[in-house]
Amino acid sequence: MSKDTADTAVTALDLPMVDPLPPQTQKYFDICQEKLGLVPNVLKAYAFDIDKLNAFSALYNDMMLADSGLTKLEREMIAVTVSSINKCFYCLTAHGAAVRELSGDPKLGEHLVMNWRTAPVTPEQRAMLEFAAKLTTESHAVEEVDRQRLRDHGFSDRDIWDIAGVAGFYNMTNRVASATDMRPNDEYHSAAR
Amino acid sequence: MSKDTADTAVTALDLPMVDPLPPQTQKYFDICQEKLGLVPNVLKAYAFDIDKLNAFSALYNDMMLADSGLTKLEREMIAVTVSSINKCFYCLTAHGAAVRELSGDPKLGEHLVMNWRTAPVTPEQRAMLEFAAKLTTESHAVEEVDRQRLRDHGFSDRDIWDIAGVAGFYNMTNRVASATDMRPNDEYHSAAR
Amino acid sequence: MSKDTADTAVTALDLPMVDPLPPQTQKYFDICQEKLGLVPNVLKAYAFDIDKLNAFSALYNDMMLADSGLTKLEREMIAVTVSSINKCFYCLTAHGAAVRELSGDPKLGEHLVMNWRTAPVTPEQRAMLEFAAKLTTESHAVEEVDRQRLRDHGFSDRDIWDIAGVAGFYNMTNRVASATDMRPNDEYHSAAR
Amino acid sequence: MSKDTADTAVTALDLPMVDPLPPQTQKYFDICQEKLGLVPNVLKAYAFDIDKLNAFSALYNDMMLADSGLTKLEREMIAVTVSSINKCFYCLTAHGAAVRELSGDPKLGEHLVMNWRTAPVTPEQRAMLEFAAKLTTESHAVEEVDRQRLRDHGFSDRDIWDIAGVAGFYNMTNRVASATDMRPNDEYHSAAR
Amino acid sequence: MSKDTADTAVTALDLPMVDPLPPQTQKYFDICQEKLGLVPNVLKAYAFDIDKLNAFSALYNDMMLADSGLTKLEREMIAVTVSSINKCFYCLTAHGAAVRELSGDPKLGEHLVMNWRTAPVTPEQRAMLEFAAKLTTESHAVEEVDRQRLRDHGFSDRDIWDIAGVAGFYNMTNRVASATDMRPNDEYHSAAR
Amino acid sequence: MSKDTADTAVTALDLPMVDPLPPQTQKYFDICQEKLGLVPNVLKAYAFDIDKLNAFSALYNDMMLADSGLTKLEREMIAVTVSSINKCFYCLTAHGAAVRELSGDPKLGEHLVMNWRTAPVTPEQRAMLEFAAKLTTESHAVEEVDRQRLRDHGFSDRDIWDIAGVAGFYNMTNRVASATDMRPNDEYHSAAR
Repeated sequence: MSKDTADTAVTALDLPMVDPLPPQTQKYFDICQEKLGLVPNVLKAYAFDIDKLNAFSALYNDMMLADSGLTKLEREMIAVTVSSINKCFYCLTAHGAAVRELSGDPKLGEHLVMNWRTAPVTPEQRAMLEFAAKLTTESHAVEEVDRQRLRDHGFSDRDIWDIAGVAGFYNMTNRVASATDMRPNDEYHSAAR
Repeated sequence: MSKDTADTAVTALDLPMVDPLPPQTQKYFDICQEKLGLVPNVLKAYAFDIDKLNAFSALYNDMMLADSGLTKLEREMIAVTVSSINKCFYCLTAHGAAVRELSGDPKLGEHLVMNWRTAPVTPEQRAMLEFAAKLTTESHAVEEVDRQRLRDHGFSDRDIWDIAGVAGFYNMTNRVASATDMRPNDEYHSAAR
Repeated sequence: MSKDTADTAVTALDLPMVDPLPPQTQKYFDICQEKLGLVPNVLKAYAFDIDKLNAFSALYNDMMLADSGLTKLEREMIAVTVSSINKCFYCLTAHGAAVRELSGDPKLGEHLVMNWRTAPVTPEQRAMLEFAAKLTTESHAVEEVDRQRLRDHGFSDRDIWDIAGVAGFYNMTNRVASATDMRPNDEYHSAAR
Repeated sequence: MSKDTADTAVTALDLPMVDPLPPQTQKYFDICQEKLGLVPNVLKAYAFDIDKLNAFSALYNDMMLADSGLTKLEREMIAVTVSSINKCFYCLTAHGAAVRELSGDPKLGEHLVMNWRTAPVTPEQRAMLEFAAKLTTESHAVEEVDRQRLRDHGFSDRDIWDIAGVAGFYNMTNRVASATDMRPNDEYHSAAR
Repeated sequence: MSKDTADTAVTALDLPMVDPLPPQTQKYFDICQEKLGLVPNVLKAYAFDIDKLNAFSALYNDMMLADSGLTKLEREMIAVTVSSINKCFYCLTAHGAAVRELSGDPKLGEHLVMNWRTAPVTPEQRAMLEFAAKLTTESHAVEEVDRQRLRDHGFSDRDIWDIAGVAGFYNMTNRVASATDMRPNDEYHSAAR
Repeated sequence: MSKDTADTAVTALDLPMVDPLPPQTQKYFDICQEKLGLVPNVLKAYAFDIDKLNAFSALYNDMMLADSGLTKLEREMIAVTVSSINKCFYCLTAHGAAVRELSGDPKLGEHLVMNWRTAPVTPEQRAMLEFAAKLTTESHAVEEVDRQRLRDHGFSDRDIWDIAGVAGFYNMTNRVASATDMRPNDEYHSAAR
């Protein structure tokens, strides 16, 4: 494990990473470092318990990276919209950077962080974000008419599941991050500006 | 796959289960049927995509069944409290039944479903549920003082992570369930009354 | 007065029942015991002042039992919907049981307790519950368009009054019950499951 | 019945008064006219059904006029505070006038209508209004600590019941008034300025 | 400076007026006294710093008195609607009186103070007040459709600016008044009843 | 006037700048261009009416630049905190950049935009931002205890006025910006990262 990942507190909880990390975890972190230039702090935060880290990573990878009718950018747009409603500093920082990078449009990332409703997106994306926002603020009020509106914009039932899945996922991680005062890697702030 | 699990629509989405189920999944469902007397509809709902089912199940099992400073009943109490705030019919039905069964106190399950604040719990459990509720309604306002209050009630930093993890998890599943109009198995309603 | 009614604290306030009860009140309680198998705790709670008990009972009987274009089940459905918004443990317990019994559908009672918006009711009943819910959460925003929507579903002006009356009544009793920590009779929990 | 009371629509519902009024009701209205200089429109609104009128009047009279540890002015202060939260035009008009008259302080009535929190009242009255306001906005969150705060200000358990009763009552009537667009008598506006 | 303006505390802050007032300010106050019969306390409150007083007065005069497609009464109606949402005692008192006076309709002023949604106004004024109210409660959700609704009611783009400007202005002054416990001149209470 | 400032629509309203600008206004804009490298779009937006522009600018300059017990950075921190609650894209962009620049801490600007409650500020600044936030979300609930808390942190009554003034000012401009879909200059996004 590099010195850099060891000596930075990534949450307010005293839950140090397993030391040494199991080889497979160390390899995963090395790949992150190589590909992203950093090991996302959320992974370090979970690394006090390798089973939890693996369960979280598997779900994350399925949600954000697996095949889907939604593009990776669209999934990141949902991540930022949900996180802006929940005001999650960690997730807005990390996924705001992802939107800036994937879209090649730094202003779009800022706009979604600040007020998703007035951001310039397609009508389909707008419908997608409205569904994600309603799920975030009043999930109990979602009804068939809301699902149908997505279908009317061309989304399949599988797409609807994926929108719900991603919106649900960030409603989970926003809360874990806020509960633990999780701190984003500094590198995100200046990325893709 | 039994006829019973095949012909019931468990959500409002047209996402049929993989047919036939892979042997490992079928085995998992058979064990559920044997031990619980039913295959929870949430598992059938995810079974249109075995990778998603596996990722969800792994996280669920880690959250609710793995070793923790929180008892299984306490984790179910968090599940019901979060679900009552989000008014999730599926989760209140399934986990309300779990509280009734694990506590041996049918009234406690009802009370948490209806108004967790006035339910008769220990001061420690009350602190735990207050933290879970605050995470649910205004996660951005959680601060060190909230974590410290849990420590003052004897919770360790690992316990705090677990409370956050379970509360976060139901904030995810409540939304997936409401987004898809997921319907609970009828058996829950009369269980452990 | 029977021992059973005497020695149970039904609220958090130290307001014992008049002892002995006046003959007419005792007779009323005896009839409740005979017909319902219990004397509802709300009546015992009011019995520290017979004038208050009589005023409350008279209004209750007029609202819930007198002739109306609304069926008794529909009035109980309003009671549960309003009480679920106000999260009143007493009223949800007592009137949830009433919906289960009057409808012969245990799931309907649970569903209205947990999330009235997704409960399977007729379009007319849905309009009725939406009006009752809006009255509960933002009565100041009710306008002619809301009344007209009820008329469009076939409700008469007298029906509208009755919906408002019942919704208003539970907005009162929910608050009296919560203010005093009123406790429902245990028998309700297992009734009509 | 005087012409004046007959030909004015007092709500948006087409529910004319019983005509002629039963002698006892006519006598009640005549007394109102003599003592108050008007028949409150709420009574005319209920007079389409004499049983409902009687049940409402009996409860009103018990709440607002019967013996209580609360003065009549204090009960009117609760009425205005609750009605200001619910923004009920009828009740704010009628009971704002009552506060002005009973207190001999026109500004106090205005202040409670506009922002009860900053109105100049005694610490005891402030505690009373805070309890009534909490009951109005989040009754489910009332707990023993709230009742104890009232006791610490010298209120008896009977007083607590009465505060809850009056606050509950206006949470009912505010909703009946808003549901029906009930219009206050013009005379209230200029009274006791 | 007259004795009357000197010895009354107009806020909870210890910020006495500049003494003596500069000649131009004294002249402005004298004109107020002559034309309105009082010097509005808000001006006395700002008079601890003449630059601030001048900046505030200039903006006020431009908003409320300069040429506009909105009548002075309409601007006062916006002032009261915004102030009723923010429950500002000072502004409701002062501008409620202004609506009563400019409209010649004492009930209208009361109605807007108590519940603007049910006040009898023209459809155009209703659209104007809805826009002002939405700006007050959830400005981030205002979109092109909201602006277009105003245009459909005959408002020009310049009118839309003015509605926004006045609504914005009272969202500022309501907060300054509440932050400092600013007290309205007594004369407003009985004016134009 | 440069071409650049002329042909960009800065709001959704069709309100072109006075053309040519009066010499004094043109000079003001030239100074902005020289000192800031841009003419803030808010000034261009107001420039359809020079009186309005002047009134706005005078108040802005008094609030943000005049002598005060609050530093310019602290006033910008209030601006961002208020704007984050109101989710104003224009003001968050412009004043987020100002916090980054004045503090020399790019992360602080981001943090205040995303969740002011968890941003690393001094206890005094925290008290200041809490007051500004309470003023923004529930100004009617501000009471003497809130003012006293500021005094206990060393703020003078004049400082309290200034905090209220700046918080009030952004509650105005946030609404004017959102009402008109005001668009920030692109330069802000990359500034001081």
